[in-house]
Amino acid sequence: MIHRTPIRVRFAETDQMGIAYHGAYVPWFEVGRVEWLRARGVSYRAMEKDGVSLAVSGLEIDYRISARFDDEIVIETELLEARSRRFAFGYRAVLEDGTVLARAKSIHTPMDANGRAIRLPAKWLAAFGPVEAEAPQRT
Amino acid sequence: MIHRTPIRVRFAETDQMGIAYHGAYVPWFEVGRVEWLRARGVSYRAMEKDGVSLAVSGLEIDYRISARFDDEIVIETELLEARSRRFAFGYRAVLEDGTVLARAKSIHTPMDANGRAIRLPAKWLAAFGPVEAEAPQRT
Amino acid sequence: MIHRTPIRVRFAETDQMGIAYHGAYVPWFEVGRVEWLRARGVSYRAMEKDGVSLAVSGLEIDYRISARFDDEIVIETELLEARSRRFAFGYRAVLEDGTVLARAKSIHTPMDANGRAIRLPAKWLAAFGPVEAEAPQRT
Amino acid sequence: MIHRTPIRVRFAETDQMGIAYHGAYVPWFEVGRVEWLRARGVSYRAMEKDGVSLAVSGLEIDYRISARFDDEIVIETELLEARSRRFAFGYRAVLEDGTVLARAKSIHTPMDANGRAIRLPAKWLAAFGPVEAEAPQRT
Repeated sequence: MIHRTPIRVRFAETDQMGIAYHGAYVPWFEVGRVEWLRARGVSYRAMEKDGVSLAVSGLEIDYRISARFDDEIVIETELLEARSRRFAFGYRAVLEDGTVLARAKSIHTPMDANGRAIRLPAKWLAAFGPVEAEAPQRT
Repeated sequence: MIHRTPIRVRFAETDQMGIAYHGAYVPWFEVGRVEWLRARGVSYRAMEKDGVSLAVSGLEIDYRISARFDDEIVIETELLEARSRRFAFGYRAVLEDGTVLARAKSIHTPMDANGRAIRLPAKWLAAFGPVEAEAPQRT
Repeated sequence: MIHRTPIRVRFAETDQMGIAYHGAYVPWFEVGRVEWLRARGVSYRAMEKDGVSLAVSGLEIDYRISARFDDEIVIETELLEARSRRFAFGYRAVLEDGTVLARAKSIHTPMDANGRAIRLPAKWLAAFGPVEAEAPQRT
Repeated sequence: MIHRTPIRVRFAETDQMGIAYHGAYVPWFEVGRVEWLRARGVSYRAMEKDGVSLAVSGLEIDYRISARFDDEIVIETELLEARSRRFAFGYRAVLEDGTVLARAKSIHTPMDANGRAIRLPAKWLAAFGPVEAEAPQRT
């Protein structure tokens, strides 16, 4: 399942190069991840209230074309790995005409409220469902 | 006591007008406030660990001259009010030659760890000391 | 005309108090302003390409109730003043049930691409239209 | 040359997990890069005024241990590659006792003021100096 979340580039997200600041993509991909979960019936807010976080342990971003102020972009998010101790998501930021602006991948470690690595409890793990065999986005 | 905290404008803090984004001043004044407290012997980290926060209930910023990438600015911070249920700080962002870039004021309400307004416990209140009679910065 | 723009609170916008960081509201109100302009037929991107910016010269925020991660809030924006050298917008951040989280006001000075204060060119000023006599939001 | 830049974690940089937000590291590494250049006698501000930017085309971050509010961390920065069309920097965020919090790498493409990829002009390239043969940080 690839979930598509629209994002409008905010003025606050630009830098003096006249483009979206490269760090601004980090919250965008995170929004994509939260919305992917919601589309799957999982509330990340409820997960955190239950004392479980998906801490980010790795992040890779490949920037192709700059996003600009007021651009309407779409964050395409898919689950790449779902194991009890490790999750991975893949992302693309695309324009409406399909132009790919950036690709990214994030790695996550389930943690408890004290910041200790844990196995994701079964009630939450089930919600992620199986990872699709193919991952066409990453090619 | 006016405490002076140096800040170097980060590239990330610029926007496409080629200046420091107006929202970037909010964390700067906050840094000034934390350093004012530290100069007074108060660790804001320790205060938060003790379950007490100084939530921001009001903020006013008056922008005069734009800060730019790589500028070395100084945040001048002073305590304007210190009552058990209400605190106020005043700020100026200045260049090293004394040019005033912006002035600001923040109002704070002490809160407990559950987000409820409280009286600041005496052990913390004492640390603030008396507010000076004059507030030359705000004129 | 009060324009309503929905915003979903991002995880990136929270702080360790477990609420939306008070500085996060600055981009939200800016989004409200850009969307107010769009609803009026004005593209702020086109205005900037034409060499005209509405630099922020003043900002006041009054925080009432904390916004939290994943909250769906609405930014209500209205024009308070529109003169060739000075603009003011008023804002409220509200929950869907009408609860007011924060109120704000911003003051703007038209600037050219070199950062010099200018009169807003007539072609852009006209687009703002007359300011309504009453300003029920600010009472 | 490994340049060490001290950074104090700002309250604004925390999130509701009670740690520094993972996106906050992006500006930190950028500060490290700007200070590396300054230590080498290169002003990134002057480079941008000359119409040359080092656009970020890739970023990888490996998070080990969370940074927390008020932590004094050091960003260790070194040049990994310096070719006329491609630069790479390596980073570590460490505590004063040497604990490694995160490692990162960024890839850069020189661009002109119109956002077109260019060869870095010789006057700027010379300033980078030779890349050291060994890169002990990355092992």
